[in-house]
Amino acid sequence: MTDWFEQHNDLLTKALDACARRYSWSGWPESPSTRIHGPDKPAAGKARFESLLNRDFPLEQPGEVARVGEEVSPYTGEALGIRYPQMDPAPLFEAIARARPAWALATPRQRVGVCLEILQRCGDQLFENAHATMHTSGQSYVMAFAGSGANALDRGLEALAYAHKAMADVPATAHWERQFGADGAASLDKRYRLVPRGVGVIICCATFPLWNTYPALCASLATGNPVVLKAHPAATLPVAMVVQVCREVLAEAGFDPNLVSLAADTREQPATLSLVQHPDTAIIDFTGSPSFGTWLERNCPGKQVYTETAGCNSVVLESCQDLQLTARAIAQSLCQASAQMCTSVQNIHLPAQGIKVAGKQVPLEQVQQALCEAVDFWLEDGRRAATLCGTLFDPQVQANIDRYRELAQGRLLRDSAPYQHPEYPAARTATPLIIAATRAYRDWYRQEVFGPVSFVISNDSPQDCLDDATGNARDCGAITAHVYSVDDDFVERAVEAYHQAGASVAVNLSAMPINFAAAYSDYHVTGLNPAGNACLTDLAFVASRFRIVQSKFMRS
Amino acid sequence: MTDWFEQHNDLLTKALDACARRYSWSGWPESPSTRIHGPDKPAAGKARFESLLNRDFPLEQPGEVARVGEEVSPYTGEALGIRYPQMDPAPLFEAIARARPAWALATPRQRVGVCLEILQRCGDQLFENAHATMHTSGQSYVMAFAGSGANALDRGLEALAYAHKAMADVPATAHWERQFGADGAASLDKRYRLVPRGVGVIICCATFPLWNTYPALCASLATGNPVVLKAHPAATLPVAMVVQVCREVLAEAGFDPNLVSLAADTREQPATLSLVQHPDTAIIDFTGSPSFGTWLERNCPGKQVYTETAGCNSVVLESCQDLQLTARAIAQSLCQASAQMCTSVQNIHLPAQGIKVAGKQVPLEQVQQALCEAVDFWLEDGRRAATLCGTLFDPQVQANIDRYRELAQGRLLRDSAPYQHPEYPAARTATPLIIAATRAYRDWYRQEVFGPVSFVISNDSPQDCLDDATGNARDCGAITAHVYSVDDDFVERAVEAYHQAGASVAVNLSAMPINFAAAYSDYHVTGLNPAGNACLTDLAFVASRFRIVQSKFMRS
Repeated sequence: MTDWFEQHNDLLTKALDACARRYSWSGWPESPSTRIHGPDKPAAGKARFESLLNRDFPLEQPGEVARVGEEVSPYTGEALGIRYPQMDPAPLFEAIARARPAWALATPRQRVGVCLEILQRCGDQLFENAHATMHTSGQSYVMAFAGSGANALDRGLEALAYAHKAMADVPATAHWERQFGADGAASLDKRYRLVPRGVGVIICCATFPLWNTYPALCASLATGNPVVLKAHPAATLPVAMVVQVCREVLAEAGFDPNLVSLAADTREQPATLSLVQHPDTAIIDFTGSPSFGTWLERNCPGKQVYTETAGCNSVVLESCQDLQLTARAIAQSLCQASAQMCTSVQNIHLPAQGIKVAGKQVPLEQVQQALCEAVDFWLEDGRRAATLCGTLFDPQVQANIDRYRELAQGRLLRDSAPYQHPEYPAARTATPLIIAATRAYRDWYRQEVFGPVSFVISNDSPQDCLDDATGNARDCGAITAHVYSVDDDFVERAVEAYHQAGASVAVNLSAMPINFAAAYSDYHVTGLNPAGNACLTDLAFVASRFRIVQSKFMRS
Repeated sequence: MTDWFEQHNDLLTKALDACARRYSWSGWPESPSTRIHGPDKPAAGKARFESLLNRDFPLEQPGEVARVGEEVSPYTGEALGIRYPQMDPAPLFEAIARARPAWALATPRQRVGVCLEILQRCGDQLFENAHATMHTSGQSYVMAFAGSGANALDRGLEALAYAHKAMADVPATAHWERQFGADGAASLDKRYRLVPRGVGVIICCATFPLWNTYPALCASLATGNPVVLKAHPAATLPVAMVVQVCREVLAEAGFDPNLVSLAADTREQPATLSLVQHPDTAIIDFTGSPSFGTWLERNCPGKQVYTETAGCNSVVLESCQDLQLTARAIAQSLCQASAQMCTSVQNIHLPAQGIKVAGKQVPLEQVQQALCEAVDFWLEDGRRAATLCGTLFDPQVQANIDRYRELAQGRLLRDSAPYQHPEYPAARTATPLIIAATRAYRDWYRQEVFGPVSFVISNDSPQDCLDDATGNARDCGAITAHVYSVDDDFVERAVEAYHQAGASVAVNLSAMPINFAAAYSDYHVTGLNPAGNACLTDLAFVASRFRIVQSKFMRS
């Protein structure tokens, strides 16, 4: 039996160091280029993806009652035809209950070793995962390879590093000795055992199925908790592939594969409630809508609930040195993954009097125009547009666009339209819809409008921009926020105002994808505003997933 | 301005090391002996206590609406006559809101320094605190000095060490740099700021007013949260004295003293709900009854709730080497602080066929008799009885005894009676009531009976003892559990069974007070059974009391 902890120790050590110092590092390649991987791996990944289509996904789990599958490729419009196990919670949880004791008694080192091996093997299927993510979440191939591959695996390794750190904080044994009164010298041997909470249910989302899944999986599993993954009906395949790896690795390590299982469902018959409300469920990790996230936070007493939902991410543009550069940075966020990311910008606040660019006053209209031109710049080239925007994962996203086009008649700065995908003529695509707004239209923008719909909001003054944006962050949530300003005082005030609203903030980011959240470096989600209550990853994300029992023995 | 962090750094360093290796250590003296302290300090402490009687307690807090005080000494039967501020939450929380920002912005180092100085100054008033604890909680002078002094301060320092460790895990700054595509090299300076959750309300209990208070205070205050201490109407003085120190130290450090405040109330008009339900309250630390603890755990969504309540602590006596020694260890627990401790033993399980003592079978009746004789041994000498038992903090405890005497007619192994206190003729005292029970009487013992009431339960077999005791731990809670056995296999099974029930367990403890829970070494309360959801102290106790916001700046 290979000692996986030993084998992958370098990876873990490196991750621990990166978390402590928070520099840039990645454990996996971000580029799918054949120049790096050669021609065989990419081809094999694609072939494996294709071999999975139109059949039962190979998973044998106790309690399967039927097979379901609703995935439709946003690229081809065709059903993937893959059928996943729909589970009866009762026998599933019974099987899990039988699997639990041995895993609970395994050492933290054994469990961390198993998780490291799981991540490594998921790293070996990045190509098939990229295709799976494309044809479910609608991401472009490049984005699916990086964002749902390396970047997501890094977040998983990061969570694993924190789980390891929290568990290592508790020693296995101690000796304790002291005098009581004149005669009694007590000499005790003590043992400390980590006890997992119970079953962890992970509710995965459709647009980034693995971004929160790897961290939640590693955090719960490493600390001894079995895990049930409730995939989204529109994006089950990437999750199912992870479950398959987990079960394989667990079995090889001599553990019961039912420690990790997949619960597939349909839109019509969701399985979520029966899973989270099961008495054995002690931990819930949720990514999805703010309304259901809040419901879970408030209605699962006695269970640990970790949520990442959504908000209305903002930009405050007060001044800049180079308008084109700044506009392109913002516009890239409006385009990237068709603004279906949790870090996509939605609300762009500008002072009505315009902004200073390199010291010269530029009127509002010119800034609005620069933003629209910057969007067009990213879409100019068909291949670049496709790589950047990908597709809309669901027809509902197009409906959002249509609803706002209707609502905002006469206030459109830029209309949305499909772009022609160079490879997939049937791809469901849409370019950004940009709406000119003022505080009078606050009902439009004080919520997440999912997809490529954004608002350029003219406020009374730079301070009013800040007040509006940070008030919205506090009341409606924010996962990211951006300030562009060459005025140090304004920047300082803005940072303070966002922090007071419980939001993190980035200043003057350009020449990089501003949506990018870096594992090991960026604390993702503050937990201080309605966009979620948990952070990827900090000690709080892992420390409550296990408890401690102790035994003490008097030396005779 | 003294750098308190620097000044007390040795203390913190020592505590961190003790937590990591969990050996025996204490930062404060446990003995009030004049041989250690000289004659002046004890006398000055007593004088200060007496100077506080029959007047308004010196605290000036915004929002005071009246003065209340219901304390009656269990030693003299006389009212202490000290009047404490009853608060109107609205103006109090407004004042706290004004105090919050500066404390939130203070560095972790500053805040930990302030907490270290608070603990040090509380350590300087151990004598007056001992008198205050005696005449409210009813503890003996020696117990009040140690258990509510050194032992409690150690738990506070322990929590502070964990808070420091959790905060130190987040660096203040980082540099992050990477390549995006061919041209864009992003170079970001990042700053990470810890953000406190909100106001922490600590609900203190009557019998050990500071044991949970110091840890909760240090955990919340060090991480930046203002704290309101809701003292028990019967035991307000020890808490008020801590609040006074906190306000003094905060003011000296240039912070608003309203960061720590006292909320006194009366039994008729409890203040708890208005404090915990205030929207600014984000953290609740509770010690008290299981029923209200469970209510808090289930009805404060979005708030961090940490509880230590109670259960039915058990002994399983399967065999031993020395019956007298074992019986005395158990009997000491029945006597100590009149069994008003969270670690007091209540249920003693014996196999009906008796137990092996040094290899020889001893019948049940003889073991029962040995237990009663051991109790008498501890009570033989009047001074020792007084030091060990103290008094009943409240007439309700005597009522519990009377109710069970009535209920268990014909099943008394030992009746309870007042013992004559050598110094205080009017002291409210009671020796242990011991009842012979079987599973037929399970309703009696499957709950905490507060005070010196215990049950010697004869079960069908050693295994039945274990099943009964561990089932009760799982269903009704347990803070401690003890097994006495010379059979290694039985010990192993017993430890496993208690752990499966979510309880910690001690094996063959004797020649020491078995109630003793050691700071820096014993994880107190598992959080896995109904006796509480939180542990003193682990990372989980501190890691969620703050969140993290970050700002990142592109280098120009």
